[in-house]
Amino acid sequence: MNTLQPKSADYDKKVRDSFARQTVMQTLGIELESVDAGAVVLSMAFDTALTQQHGFIHAGVITTGLDSAAGYAAHSLMADDAAVLTVEFKTSLLSPARGDRFLFKGQVIKPGRSLTFVEARAYALVGSDEKLIATFSATMMTIVGRGGVQG
Amino acid sequence: MNTLQPKSADYDKKVRDSFARQTVMQTLGIELESVDAGAVVLSMAFDTALTQQHGFIHAGVITTGLDSAAGYAAHSLMADDAAVLTVEFKTSLLSPARGDRFLFKGQVIKPGRSLTFVEARAYALVGSDEKLIATFSATMMTIVGRGGVQG
Amino acid sequence: MNTLQPKSADYDKKVRDSFARQTVMQTLGIELESVDAGAVVLSMAFDTALTQQHGFIHAGVITTGLDSAAGYAAHSLMADDAAVLTVEFKTSLLSPARGDRFLFKGQVIKPGRSLTFVEARAYALVGSDEKLIATFSATMMTIVGRGGVQG
Amino acid sequence: MNTLQPKSADYDKKVRDSFARQTVMQTLGIELESVDAGAVVLSMAFDTALTQQHGFIHAGVITTGLDSAAGYAAHSLMADDAAVLTVEFKTSLLSPARGDRFLFKGQVIKPGRSLTFVEARAYALVGSDEKLIATFSATMMTIVGRGGVQG
Repeated sequence: MNTLQPKSADYDKKVRDSFARQTVMQTLGIELESVDAGAVVLSMAFDTALTQQHGFIHAGVITTGLDSAAGYAAHSLMADDAAVLTVEFKTSLLSPARGDRFLFKGQVIKPGRSLTFVEARAYALVGSDEKLIATFSATMMTIVGRGGVQG
Repeated sequence: MNTLQPKSADYDKKVRDSFARQTVMQTLGIELESVDAGAVVLSMAFDTALTQQHGFIHAGVITTGLDSAAGYAAHSLMADDAAVLTVEFKTSLLSPARGDRFLFKGQVIKPGRSLTFVEARAYALVGSDEKLIATFSATMMTIVGRGGVQG
Repeated sequence: MNTLQPKSADYDKKVRDSFARQTVMQTLGIELESVDAGAVVLSMAFDTALTQQHGFIHAGVITTGLDSAAGYAAHSLMADDAAVLTVEFKTSLLSPARGDRFLFKGQVIKPGRSLTFVEARAYALVGSDEKLIATFSATMMTIVGRGGVQG
Repeated sequence: MNTLQPKSADYDKKVRDSFARQTVMQTLGIELESVDAGAVVLSMAFDTALTQQHGFIHAGVITTGLDSAAGYAAHSLMADDAAVLTVEFKTSLLSPARGDRFLFKGQVIKPGRSLTFVEARAYALVGSDEKLIATFSATMMTIVGRGGVQG
């Protein structure tokens, strides 16, 4: 994975600025942990405001973290004037989302001019234990020069 | 689809009670519109607290509505002592999620003793116009008699 | 779905010519049944040369039929100089693939300049009974003017 | 991944016997390369009988190899009286399937009593170069004691 080359000299700032504009991240308490070329990590604390009927975090909330981690992993490789849009994704829910905190780790598998393939994994943290709870694969699209869509 | 037979005499109440326990639904402003045997409709108003970097509703929030509509469509056919858990899903994002309101329509495609296949569609409402913005397919699992997991 | 507009005046011939170049279709005995704007139907007879360990048709063979039906449904709407490539797909296997014959029905859900979203369904025929055995959703990409890739 | 424990003392023979009953594997020229606990590798030579309209191996054939590699990876962990059925899968097609040979590597991500989550990757071999061309994620189901379905 060490051959991934960012097209922006300041991809870290580009990703952080765009992430700051995702207001849903503040609503859900999802934070940016790290940005590397083609790899982004987000985190989220457990919150009863985000649970489904059994008291676990809702699969859609887990997917929100996975999609943003994956989308920004793709975005980190794109040019300064490019925006990223999610085309589609699949989430597999290996275990119920219970834990104190959650990590969402996005990783570009294959970048492309128009389409970028990305994977992400969600982990539940209970004390020092890190448990894989969900896998995610997505197709991301590079958007250049459309009015009204900013990175 | 008219051959879908609920195993609970009071499936409407069962679904509404379980939905009321999904606290994330109140957090996101998602409401239950209708419950039929194998088909559930939810709705949500546009809210800037739920947007991504371009001002559209985040794909993960759209997926939260789709997953709940699909999960409760499956749940509506299950026995009184059965709970539903999502195994996996795929969401395809046909158009950006902009609109005044959104509808999430879940429909069972094939019920089964252990696994139920469900589809859902998300629509954006702008005035009287209803536009398909996302499709969703999922596998749901019936859980019976596990301690700590309630319907 | 009746608003789908083909960009080629002779889309029927264009699809049939391309289908004839898919040699794997002859290998598997898959035939073209019908071509409409945005909708294509293929068929296949049961053949023990195509079975998995339980004597059913292998899920990968069913997916081959679904992918071609979906791909040509997308292709039917594209311009004369455009080729179609599959980006990704998901197949859900509702029931084992046993039957005398199988139908694969592809339908465009949303066409686009670059990406087209398509769904397909597989049916098993036993006598006059037609049973839904698999659902499929895919993203198709329009390719224009790349050397070496023809429609 | 080294914590995966097979339930069968002779899982290697169990997988090889079942693979030998998949007649479609001979039809497509797919061979079993290796069997480990939770991991199976298959291979296939390029064959013009398996191509799509551009001369690449058809995505459905690639998926057939991926699904069998993934299914047998799951099967290798199951008890002697258990059979495996594919519930659903997603394939992402990163690059056209051209090459002299192809490898399909299946790996269990999370085994379970009823459901097992598996991933697989397809590689194209050109000379000594090995290129990732497709990723795959699937849900597999353990079937015990159903008449007519053998492992």
